[in-house]
Amino acid sequence: MSAFSIVDLIIAKRNGGELSDEAIRWALDSYVAGTIADEQVSALLMAIFFRGLDDRELATWTDTMIASGERLDLTSLSRPSVDKHSTGGVGDKISLIVAPLVAACGAAVPQLSGRGLGHTGGTLDKLEAIPGWRAVLTNDEIVTQLETIGAVICAAGAGLAPADRKLYALRDVTGTVESIPLISSSIMSKKIAEGTNALVLDVKVGRGAFMKHYDDARRLAQTMVGLGTRAGVATLAQLTNMNQPLGQACGNGIEVLESIEVLRGGGPADVRELTISLARSMLQLVGIDVDPASALDDGRAYDVYCQMIEAQGGDSSAALSLGSSRDVLHADRDGYVSRVDAMDVGLAAWRLGAGRARKEDAVSPGAGVRCLVREGDLVATGQPLFELYADDEVHLERGRTSLATALTWSEDPPATEALLFETITATSR
Amino acid sequence: MSAFSIVDLIIAKRNGGELSDEAIRWALDSYVAGTIADEQVSALLMAIFFRGLDDRELATWTDTMIASGERLDLTSLSRPSVDKHSTGGVGDKISLIVAPLVAACGAAVPQLSGRGLGHTGGTLDKLEAIPGWRAVLTNDEIVTQLETIGAVICAAGAGLAPADRKLYALRDVTGTVESIPLISSSIMSKKIAEGTNALVLDVKVGRGAFMKHYDDARRLAQTMVGLGTRAGVATLAQLTNMNQPLGQACGNGIEVLESIEVLRGGGPADVRELTISLARSMLQLVGIDVDPASALDDGRAYDVYCQMIEAQGGDSSAALSLGSSRDVLHADRDGYVSRVDAMDVGLAAWRLGAGRARKEDAVSPGAGVRCLVREGDLVATGQPLFELYADDEVHLERGRTSLATALTWSEDPPATEALLFETITATSR
Repeated sequence: MSAFSIVDLIIAKRNGGELSDEAIRWALDSYVAGTIADEQVSALLMAIFFRGLDDRELATWTDTMIASGERLDLTSLSRPSVDKHSTGGVGDKISLIVAPLVAACGAAVPQLSGRGLGHTGGTLDKLEAIPGWRAVLTNDEIVTQLETIGAVICAAGAGLAPADRKLYALRDVTGTVESIPLISSSIMSKKIAEGTNALVLDVKVGRGAFMKHYDDARRLAQTMVGLGTRAGVATLAQLTNMNQPLGQACGNGIEVLESIEVLRGGGPADVRELTISLARSMLQLVGIDVDPASALDDGRAYDVYCQMIEAQGGDSSAALSLGSSRDVLHADRDGYVSRVDAMDVGLAAWRLGAGRARKEDAVSPGAGVRCLVREGDLVATGQPLFELYADDEVHLERGRTSLATALTWSEDPPATEALLFETITATSR
Repeated sequence: MSAFSIVDLIIAKRNGGELSDEAIRWALDSYVAGTIADEQVSALLMAIFFRGLDDRELATWTDTMIASGERLDLTSLSRPSVDKHSTGGVGDKISLIVAPLVAACGAAVPQLSGRGLGHTGGTLDKLEAIPGWRAVLTNDEIVTQLETIGAVICAAGAGLAPADRKLYALRDVTGTVESIPLISSSIMSKKIAEGTNALVLDVKVGRGAFMKHYDDARRLAQTMVGLGTRAGVATLAQLTNMNQPLGQACGNGIEVLESIEVLRGGGPADVRELTISLARSMLQLVGIDVDPASALDDGRAYDVYCQMIEAQGGDSSAALSLGSSRDVLHADRDGYVSRVDAMDVGLAAWRLGAGRARKEDAVSPGAGVRCLVREGDLVATGQPLFELYADDEVHLERGRTSLATALTWSEDPPATEALLFETITATSR
């Protein structure tokens, strides 16, 4: 007989009690081993949704998830390693840019990523718009590419934190995703297992983010920074604005095209600003005193990008074609744009074909939307607002419908919001 | 595609929202049909544990559980039907006495019962201590026995509220039992499906009850009375004291023996008092103006008991033998007994062999404990306190251990508590 009863642990957490380290290890190990049932763990997760995990419980929970799998060994690298993770936003193509940029500045960037689900895109989905590019690398390929090129964006292997993989699949179907300790442990177990020396978290807050409220985003950032620091990973978080989409492009191939613009020193100002800010933090954490802006402007970042894509079989010079069913929406009034709702735009891109409803669905490389206006813009009747791309008229119409409520107008110039809100470090709690 | 998504419903309830009637019907029907998964329903149940169900949601939830199965038709009976349900206590053998007693007074009592799990015994387990008695009857046998004898105590068939059967099994292993709406709907769906005209609920509160706090017990009583009344079943509830065991005997055969004493006009005063109080309420609800005390004293209740047992194959005159491994615990001090902890005594009976740890376990007919002292008794050193009965020395020792903390002593006469606290009717909310 086991020393623990899962029903007793569920009831203890449900009633607001603490779980011992031994109990947490036993529960997660038993779940991975298949000796306690999905319906028991989902009840425990829902109890955690309501009651939370304290710092000790969360550290043990995360450690147990890491210990459930392998840990990448990056100690052989001649460069310091630093990764960036975003909690997910609309038009957020920063990973594609920042990984080669920071590599061009002298660090190694092991971007082990996931796919998109719902209204936010996935980095792997975007890069798969490039002909030939492959997401799956072996651990040896990852380490070699980090040493020779300095940047890897690839799929997180099944060997990293398998407990998280199993738990996330369960949370996804049981309404237990939106819990700060569960989100934190899920993200940080994979990032710590990835072996990086340092980590910058881009915690999005706003209409298009998973965290709608600033306090929640701040608590999530503090929790993740605490977990990383405790595990010996130099970690900081930036709270950034996700009320309107980042940049103009939302989709897969269309975001790759915009990323290349930024990598060549151009592109939308907000994408460039956030990229440079995150890159600065990443370089600071590993003690590299190089200005990332110059590496965008002089082409070094773009060179590393091309090497990174080609090392993974991609044709970096291929022309990416956007969907052949196209439309442009025009303003039917004059006025200031006071709001571009990132959630509406994200849903539009998703419905145009850029996202998936189920994990097993395919995404369209050419579907997406380009937002031609930003909050604060003064627009005249007839001016183009959105370009839509889809693979067929059915998807095009779905995207059009989602955009109907995306814009809010005002007669007077609206107040504009900051892009970067706050930086959270291990000492800023 | 279905009109509903179970994940959306879980999240809605989790976030404090209301579920529509259609959503509740869809969710429960889908669960019974096997098209939504255990892990999703357990997450929903845990969300309900925290967020509750309002009156409308609970009524629909209960109606859907009833509609998942058959409903017994008692309309052909020439007598009015009235049942009693206890939320479970230690030494609670009232069903064995009150069913034949109320039948002897002119009503029909359809006692469809369950088995014991944990520290409280089950009515069927107790009656199975009688040689030959069978718990399983067909619906026709139930109706016939109600008409000819007036009382049936038997197993609730699988056809009654099968949704509850499936939900209860899930709640039992997922820490979601202790929820007032879920307890209420579970009990009342079965009682309403049973077809009874009227119902008296004995809601236990105290150390040996599922409800430890008076407010919780009162809320449970009000909720169940509301559900019964709404469904056209005349329902009232009595809140009764379960701090110390009811009567002296706790076990299976040993409780049958004590029940027979009460049915013959004797037995412990508290068992007699509660039996008469519940019987009075039952008879009042169906408009029968007969004093139940006289039916105990003149042997009519015992006659009906013997007919009821024999109609189900039992030998009502068989001598019931108690376990051959026996012990008597004696007082090692003088003083007043200020507490007899019903939970400790219930666990002792369970560990002596009277209860089961898992649904599939067998129970011992002869195991049990007799409490020779009650709260308020003045006891002298050497006086017997408990008689223990088990089938072997191992179980005997386990029971002895559980009784070590059962008694609390005081130098001065302790305050004694009422047995009957309060009656809850449909208008007393």
